[in-house]
Amino acid sequence: MAGRLVRKKGKKAGSAPGTLVYTGQAPSQASVWQLLQYDSHRIEDKTLTDLAQLPAQPAGMVRWLNSCGLSGVAPVEQLGKAFNLHPLVLEDMLNTDHRPKVEAHADYLFIVFKMLYFQLDSREIRAEQISLVLLENTVISLQEMPGNVFEGVLQRLQAGRRLRGFGADYLAYALLDAVVDHYFTLLEQCGDHIEQLENELMDSPTVAVLSKIHHFKREMLMLRKAVWPLRELLSSLLRDDYALIKPETRIFLRDVYDHCVHIIDTMETLRDVLGGLLDLYLTSVSNRTNEVMKVLTMMASIFIPLTFIAGIYGMNFEIMPELGWQYGYGLILGLMAAIAGGLLWYFRRKGWW
Amino acid sequence: MAGRLVRKKGKKAGSAPGTLVYTGQAPSQASVWQLLQYDSHRIEDKTLTDLAQLPAQPAGMVRWLNSCGLSGVAPVEQLGKAFNLHPLVLEDMLNTDHRPKVEAHADYLFIVFKMLYFQLDSREIRAEQISLVLLENTVISLQEMPGNVFEGVLQRLQAGRRLRGFGADYLAYALLDAVVDHYFTLLEQCGDHIEQLENELMDSPTVAVLSKIHHFKREMLMLRKAVWPLRELLSSLLRDDYALIKPETRIFLRDVYDHCVHIIDTMETLRDVLGGLLDLYLTSVSNRTNEVMKVLTMMASIFIPLTFIAGIYGMNFEIMPELGWQYGYGLILGLMAAIAGGLLWYFRRKGWW
Amino acid sequence: MAGRLVRKKGKKAGSAPGTLVYTGQAPSQASVWQLLQYDSHRIEDKTLTDLAQLPAQPAGMVRWLNSCGLSGVAPVEQLGKAFNLHPLVLEDMLNTDHRPKVEAHADYLFIVFKMLYFQLDSREIRAEQISLVLLENTVISLQEMPGNVFEGVLQRLQAGRRLRGFGADYLAYALLDAVVDHYFTLLEQCGDHIEQLENELMDSPTVAVLSKIHHFKREMLMLRKAVWPLRELLSSLLRDDYALIKPETRIFLRDVYDHCVHIIDTMETLRDVLGGLLDLYLTSVSNRTNEVMKVLTMMASIFIPLTFIAGIYGMNFEIMPELGWQYGYGLILGLMAAIAGGLLWYFRRKGWW
Amino acid sequence: MAGRLVRKKGKKAGSAPGTLVYTGQAPSQASVWQLLQYDSHRIEDKTLTDLAQLPAQPAGMVRWLNSCGLSGVAPVEQLGKAFNLHPLVLEDMLNTDHRPKVEAHADYLFIVFKMLYFQLDSREIRAEQISLVLLENTVISLQEMPGNVFEGVLQRLQAGRRLRGFGADYLAYALLDAVVDHYFTLLEQCGDHIEQLENELMDSPTVAVLSKIHHFKREMLMLRKAVWPLRELLSSLLRDDYALIKPETRIFLRDVYDHCVHIIDTMETLRDVLGGLLDLYLTSVSNRTNEVMKVLTMMASIFIPLTFIAGIYGMNFEIMPELGWQYGYGLILGLMAAIAGGLLWYFRRKGWW
Amino acid sequence: MAGRLVRKKGKKAGSAPGTLVYTGQAPSQASVWQLLQYDSHRIEDKTLTDLAQLPAQPAGMVRWLNSCGLSGVAPVEQLGKAFNLHPLVLEDMLNTDHRPKVEAHADYLFIVFKMLYFQLDSREIRAEQISLVLLENTVISLQEMPGNVFEGVLQRLQAGRRLRGFGADYLAYALLDAVVDHYFTLLEQCGDHIEQLENELMDSPTVAVLSKIHHFKREMLMLRKAVWPLRELLSSLLRDDYALIKPETRIFLRDVYDHCVHIIDTMETLRDVLGGLLDLYLTSVSNRTNEVMKVLTMMASIFIPLTFIAGIYGMNFEIMPELGWQYGYGLILGLMAAIAGGLLWYFRRKGWW
Repeated sequence: MAGRLVRKKGKKAGSAPGTLVYTGQAPSQASVWQLLQYDSHRIEDKTLTDLAQLPAQPAGMVRWLNSCGLSGVAPVEQLGKAFNLHPLVLEDMLNTDHRPKVEAHADYLFIVFKMLYFQLDSREIRAEQISLVLLENTVISLQEMPGNVFEGVLQRLQAGRRLRGFGADYLAYALLDAVVDHYFTLLEQCGDHIEQLENELMDSPTVAVLSKIHHFKREMLMLRKAVWPLRELLSSLLRDDYALIKPETRIFLRDVYDHCVHIIDTMETLRDVLGGLLDLYLTSVSNRTNEVMKVLTMMASIFIPLTFIAGIYGMNFEIMPELGWQYGYGLILGLMAAIAGGLLWYFRRKGWW
Repeated sequence: MAGRLVRKKGKKAGSAPGTLVYTGQAPSQASVWQLLQYDSHRIEDKTLTDLAQLPAQPAGMVRWLNSCGLSGVAPVEQLGKAFNLHPLVLEDMLNTDHRPKVEAHADYLFIVFKMLYFQLDSREIRAEQISLVLLENTVISLQEMPGNVFEGVLQRLQAGRRLRGFGADYLAYALLDAVVDHYFTLLEQCGDHIEQLENELMDSPTVAVLSKIHHFKREMLMLRKAVWPLRELLSSLLRDDYALIKPETRIFLRDVYDHCVHIIDTMETLRDVLGGLLDLYLTSVSNRTNEVMKVLTMMASIFIPLTFIAGIYGMNFEIMPELGWQYGYGLILGLMAAIAGGLLWYFRRKGWW
Repeated sequence: MAGRLVRKKGKKAGSAPGTLVYTGQAPSQASVWQLLQYDSHRIEDKTLTDLAQLPAQPAGMVRWLNSCGLSGVAPVEQLGKAFNLHPLVLEDMLNTDHRPKVEAHADYLFIVFKMLYFQLDSREIRAEQISLVLLENTVISLQEMPGNVFEGVLQRLQAGRRLRGFGADYLAYALLDAVVDHYFTLLEQCGDHIEQLENELMDSPTVAVLSKIHHFKREMLMLRKAVWPLRELLSSLLRDDYALIKPETRIFLRDVYDHCVHIIDTMETLRDVLGGLLDLYLTSVSNRTNEVMKVLTMMASIFIPLTFIAGIYGMNFEIMPELGWQYGYGLILGLMAAIAGGLLWYFRRKGWW
Repeated sequence: MAGRLVRKKGKKAGSAPGTLVYTGQAPSQASVWQLLQYDSHRIEDKTLTDLAQLPAQPAGMVRWLNSCGLSGVAPVEQLGKAFNLHPLVLEDMLNTDHRPKVEAHADYLFIVFKMLYFQLDSREIRAEQISLVLLENTVISLQEMPGNVFEGVLQRLQAGRRLRGFGADYLAYALLDAVVDHYFTLLEQCGDHIEQLENELMDSPTVAVLSKIHHFKREMLMLRKAVWPLRELLSSLLRDDYALIKPETRIFLRDVYDHCVHIIDTMETLRDVLGGLLDLYLTSVSNRTNEVMKVLTMMASIFIPLTFIAGIYGMNFEIMPELGWQYGYGLILGLMAAIAGGLLWYFRRKGWW
Repeated sequence: MAGRLVRKKGKKAGSAPGTLVYTGQAPSQASVWQLLQYDSHRIEDKTLTDLAQLPAQPAGMVRWLNSCGLSGVAPVEQLGKAFNLHPLVLEDMLNTDHRPKVEAHADYLFIVFKMLYFQLDSREIRAEQISLVLLENTVISLQEMPGNVFEGVLQRLQAGRRLRGFGADYLAYALLDAVVDHYFTLLEQCGDHIEQLENELMDSPTVAVLSKIHHFKREMLMLRKAVWPLRELLSSLLRDDYALIKPETRIFLRDVYDHCVHIIDTMETLRDVLGGLLDLYLTSVSNRTNEVMKVLTMMASIFIPLTFIAGIYGMNFEIMPELGWQYGYGLILGLMAAIAGGLLWYFRRKGWW
């Protein structure tokens, strides 16, 4: 999400609706599908390179078809044919700059959302799009980038824990929950980064720090664009009466929803704090200008009058009685010291040093 | 939309409602209508100069009547008569400064929206008003300026692709979709322009850049005035149960609606970024004032005391013992160097250079 | 609306509800009523000085009773008696600082709104209150100031155009439409004034221009107070099912409503632009301070070191070898020129001039 | 409301709900009740020192029981017993820092709101809490401070005007109306004060004026806290179908509601104007700093080069040809005058004086 | 809540939903439960170290099971088993950084909220999470930290006052009320702290005070995050028709709700005041820079011209007639005094001192 304010659409804009064009960032690679079939008793793990190999749905088992870093148009078209998905759904799967949303179709739910990473080196937030399709007894998940986001869920399934006793809707919930949980980690990292920025600002309010704050504020805008629609998405899953989501799963969805609201609260607080840092910067620049002015004013106010006095006795008038006095020089030096002392005392009393 | 903050209405204000007065910018020209009639099998393309030549509706075919750069009152009156349109609809077609909206009439829907262009030379956003009328099996489209906005849709129709298998409501959707798709291109151009402004600002924060930022912010206000009502328009098409829009078209309208919401998100982000640039400018001016002050303060603080010392030994007192010392001149020069060095060290420690 | 932030209520506050007290600005004058009676065939125009002369309602004709610059309590009391109006309605008619609203009574609608004028000389927005009562077949309109706001509607009625074929509800709509149409002219004038202020600001950012911007911002607040409630009023006329408003008139009301929303959009844009001008002013003052500082810093940085050097050779030490050199004076002048040149080059490189 | 940002609750917080503790400001005094009984024909005015003396409700008459500056717990407990009021209602009556609200109980309505005064000497807004209980045919009013807020209503009742012909709900309306009417006077006083502050600011933008603006802004916050909930209260009285409020009284309540909305509009405008004053102050300080800088820069830019020239001819080089020229002194003075003139012309052209 | 912007979740994120992990701050300690059983006649107080010892529910008595500073997972699991609580409820009890909420389950209500303390020494707001479970005739309360927040309620129960005559829902209300009541004390302390900050700011606007204001603003953000959701929580208890809450308890809940809204009003006012302090700081720094500039400008403007004059008569031209005049020195000193006096008078008239 770094670099460009608005992602380029490439050849996309202007083509017919339903035309499949891939807009993501993943390097092109062979399509590999991971197929998991399980019930409380068994679990089978297969790798498919072609969806034509997809076995029929075993009765009473839940199927999870997962793919990471899908980059081509062909496998998505195959998927569409295999599960009879609407062309617009396929289009949205390939257009990786989509707003999180849930879409109800006749016999499946289509869910799009973002996995977010905090890049420790560049201090940027990177987004990966994830598409879920929830059918009767089947969940399909497509991840934009290589690397399985759902590693944790996979391990829990294989470890034979509670998860296998529930249906496909619970699996979809578990996938959503894994992503929302990751947001907490992200927010912690953001919070740490902001505290670090604040410390830098306190130490030396340079333009470089200002620029960092400014850029991180923009990253937070990107974060916001991912989290607010996710809240709507979860709220719709909770509120609207989708047949595919069983009542006993709803209490779990409410839990994710609560987490999401909590994330939004924290995010907005972080944004406020970040906004406060900019104010602090401006104030501290004002303060430093004030400090600089005080130094100048004190130096000038003390030495300019003294120089003037020295100038007087540097004049070449023929008749200047003081010049002939025996202690004239000493008296003038004393007068100068008295003036300097008086001004220093005055500035001290004003609290300037 | 450039130049004037509020578009002049000309003779319009104060006349009776329903009076037809043309307020657009198009140069006067002969009215030409393009008539397209198609179904899955055939497609006919005709050019009409007079609506009296309009053939009867062929059974089972979809009719698309399109006009670009319409500037006169007479053809619109003819159109009104031919399709029995309400006088207020005709008035709105000719008043090209209208807010995007959808209006349901007994047997047709009237839709007004804006096509937006980013002028690469003047960095301004120009708007062209487009009016759609959706009747049973017929779509009428009026474009304010010459040049066909719907060239892409036209080509897809003629290329015989999927589009011809759907009804008039799908055609109306395709026209809306073409315009919303173009908004993405517009936003990319805006984003590029903002990044360019940011770079200019970083290089040299002059008043000229400030003025550019200020003006582009105003252009974004105009953009906002076009996009937010469009969202309402699409939401109304989705939500309200218009008989002319078939249920299977609704899923496509939801897709355009999602795109429109996405555009609004991006637009608001761009506005935030633009607002941030103004803050950055202000801060950088403060910073530069601070830098200038530091130079002044260092120069003054170092040389004013030295000048004072030189002034002392320029006094003409008869008795100034130091003046007679053999190494007096050298000692004083050394003292001056020590003072200057001490102050430089002090400013260095304060981080002023 | 100029001069006072809050209009004085005079003796009003604290008196019993329903007590009739006139709070307007119109000079006292004799009450004159203009009575228009028309149907598609005939039109009669009468002037009444006393409502006791009011003839009975002719069957099938629409009656319009209009009065401009009404200043006394007596004629309003007479009106109340003649049409059996609620005391609170009469009170509101005389209290000319009312918020625009619509009030449904058993057999009439009471509508209050504002006519707004842009005073070209004082650059202020002046408001005139207009009260409408819509009864079965009768419209009563009361205008605060002399001078008929509805001159255009009157002329169209007398010219025998379409207007006479509709009922009293359409007449009420036509009156509302005339006022809303005038708002467009007002906004154009405001837009022109703002552009003029912007030009003045660009030419010379003086305190006088700031004060003008500040005051016009306040005028815009007054405008806002008139237009937002008008939107509510029109929305209520559209939405609520008033028996006195026929369904075929509703489409016209929707048109005025659309215009009103458009006016609000434009007004809010103007307010944003005006707010931007204040930012621009602040920034330009900062900029000018920066410019002034640069001049000072360059002058001081160049001449203070030079003066110091001159001061050194003005010292009276007995042994200063350079003073005796043949080209000492020339060398020192050369050194000074070199220092000045070096500093000028340095400031040039920093982009200060 | 002055002095403390948050009113101290004293012993209140932590005690059991329904515990009666007085938190108001009124000096302790004997409880005195004024009892008014009236219908269209008669009116009786009694003073009770003990509610045990309360006579039975006379058939067909409206009873108004009023008390000013009630400070003890005992009379409120007596009141609760006499009219069978809920303990929480009694608690709220004594807790004088309550948010305005209406509370429906089985056979009475409990209404709390604020009377506001503008203290002319301290420029502060003081609040007095007023509790109303509306029963069938009876109104009870409790005022926090001595001095009857409802003097006007009382006089109108005794003067035998229209008021006596209505029921208890109309009396409650009249009391609310009296308070809202007083708000108009308050806003006028606030508006006058703000205009006065603006004039002071224009004359001399001192810190004292800034402090006054800042404090008055805070007073306006207090005003806001009283008026917005009052709007909710009135809206609830209008909207919710309370049996105790007769339909014919509702039109009067709508009138008070309209007034309240108008007051909110004006209040928000005043707040905007006040916020604008703070901006104006900041801008005018920037302006003045700019002015001061200009004076400094002109003085320094003119005299520093001149002093440098004088310094040159104060050097003691043995060979300085100009020193021996006959008109050397005059030429140098002329050169200095030329430089000074040139710089003055330059600053003039820049518009600095 | 101090120190870290976002609370660390430790091992929590990524684990399976329903996994019990303790995230609180309490030091590990043995679990102790306080069991209170009462009706109007009796009250029994027991201490349990193991929930296995929990006696059966005595008929007609209300049970209150309370625990302070619970830190282990085991007792919560025991609790879950004893009362058949949902795993997510147990998870939320242990996750002490939860957003306040109410959750309806089949036969119990689960309520989470925050107790807030103002730390007098560090000027920070500390939060303690409190979980309530309301069952038929039983209330379970879990407090994050040692120290009983509900000491007051406990004492009132034991003192045999009204409280014992009500059911479990009233007990839950009493616990909520105790916490909300404490918020008032908190706001008073916050208000006092803000007034103290304001005084410090008026006395000496140092960076230290700015930093304090900035940090307290952040504390207020934390307060906000606790109070707004509490309002939602109470509103849901009032609005939604929970069977466990009897209608006669609802009036008490409305009272707490009113208090909560009042707290929000006050909190937002405090936030506004705090925001105003930051503005005041910025303005006062601008002001002080202006003051410093005036001193510099006056000193420089007075002495620089004088030094120039002295410089002129320090020149070594051979022919400078004034040097030979008898009163030349005195005349020049007089001229200098006149110039200084003139400038002082000029600055005085400008109001600079």
